[in-house]
Amino acid sequence: MISLVTDKEKISPRVIERLTRYLRCLENLSPDDYISSEEMAERMGLTAAQIRKDLSNFISDFGEGFGVRGKGYQVRILYSGIEKILGVHKTNNIIIIGAGRLGGALLAEPEFTKESFNVIGVFDVAEYKVGKEVNGIKIRHTSEIEYFLNTKDRVDIAILTVPKGVAQDIATTLIKAGVKSFLNFAPLKLEVPEDVVVSNIDLYGKLQELNYWKEKVNQW
Amino acid sequence: MISLVTDKEKISPRVIERLTRYLRCLENLSPDDYISSEEMAERMGLTAAQIRKDLSNFISDFGEGFGVRGKGYQVRILYSGIEKILGVHKTNNIIIIGAGRLGGALLAEPEFTKESFNVIGVFDVAEYKVGKEVNGIKIRHTSEIEYFLNTKDRVDIAILTVPKGVAQDIATTLIKAGVKSFLNFAPLKLEVPEDVVVSNIDLYGKLQELNYWKEKVNQW
Repeated sequence: MISLVTDKEKISPRVIERLTRYLRCLENLSPDDYISSEEMAERMGLTAAQIRKDLSNFISDFGEGFGVRGKGYQVRILYSGIEKILGVHKTNNIIIIGAGRLGGALLAEPEFTKESFNVIGVFDVAEYKVGKEVNGIKIRHTSEIEYFLNTKDRVDIAILTVPKGVAQDIATTLIKAGVKSFLNFAPLKLEVPEDVVVSNIDLYGKLQELNYWKEKVNQW
Repeated sequence: MISLVTDKEKISPRVIERLTRYLRCLENLSPDDYISSEEMAERMGLTAAQIRKDLSNFISDFGEGFGVRGKGYQVRILYSGIEKILGVHKTNNIIIIGAGRLGGALLAEPEFTKESFNVIGVFDVAEYKVGKEVNGIKIRHTSEIEYFLNTKDRVDIAILTVPKGVAQDIATTLIKAGVKSFLNFAPLKLEVPEDVVVSNIDLYGKLQELNYWKEKVNQW
């Protein structure tokens, strides 16, 4: 789903997707525990070889004590190593465009109260929403986006929860103002320059995929 | 993300994911138009060979007039063929577990007003929500799920928008009552039998992935 295609980058998007899944797996364990690639593979429905291969791409990012023979990986070291690879140990400033139900739901996600993803602005086109607060953040009019981007803190990621018909125009405005990465919920492919990254979440598409696999199960 | 792993099924999850993206692409075109695999590839950032290979898996599912030499695919025929492959031409009954902001956001999605995905029940554990209506659907207590499943229409897909700590228990209850497919927003891997399919949407994981690619762009 990452639209970034370049030979400067050897790591496949699938590897990065799996790294985030390794974090989910490790979150359920005690930081002091050790886990082998075999145990992780068992928990995640992957192969141990796949996990070792994924991690070996980043061997220089892990500190000492990574992968103790006969014991496996210490949860704390593996977790913080993956966080470092993903860059989520730093604070990322986020703006959300579209203060509808989905935008509101994202703001309420407990993950957004963590330091690594910090929502600094919420925008909507609806006048009656402007000035109201969602989870302590004042909703601004979308016409203020450019001014906001020029005068406030750096924006690392823009989340688009706007209707399909306006998503491209909003993305173009944000890109002109310097935004380089997007999480897009609108069901369309955004046209962006090469140095801009887009990750898409297509809810309806996910249901359509699921429907296909469900039908297959029923046929057996 | 599809946890279904079986040798009965030769089609890769990535192919099915791309089929849903082909639908998004075709939605922006007139049904009477023709589009070549090259044009689609250009619009989607894929190769024409990839698109032709994906579609060739399902050649028997498309009717006459599929892929006219020199003209390409007629949008109408390709679109309805992909819908048929995915099984989304039929009505799918959906229940949503968790009537929080995210559950409410999903109910408000315009896609759920389409015939193919029909929400027939919404459940929550919070007493103060029970009996209220969201988009015309009464919220029921989660303790009523089993009764509902035994007495109401068939449930095709359950969407879980519940906290991580309760997701597995709820999934287990639903599976016992006969639910075979899940769209899971809780950030954990559900343990399910082989004949149950799960598709995960991990919002925080998507942000973590995006963060990795963003950092890469900044380094160039």
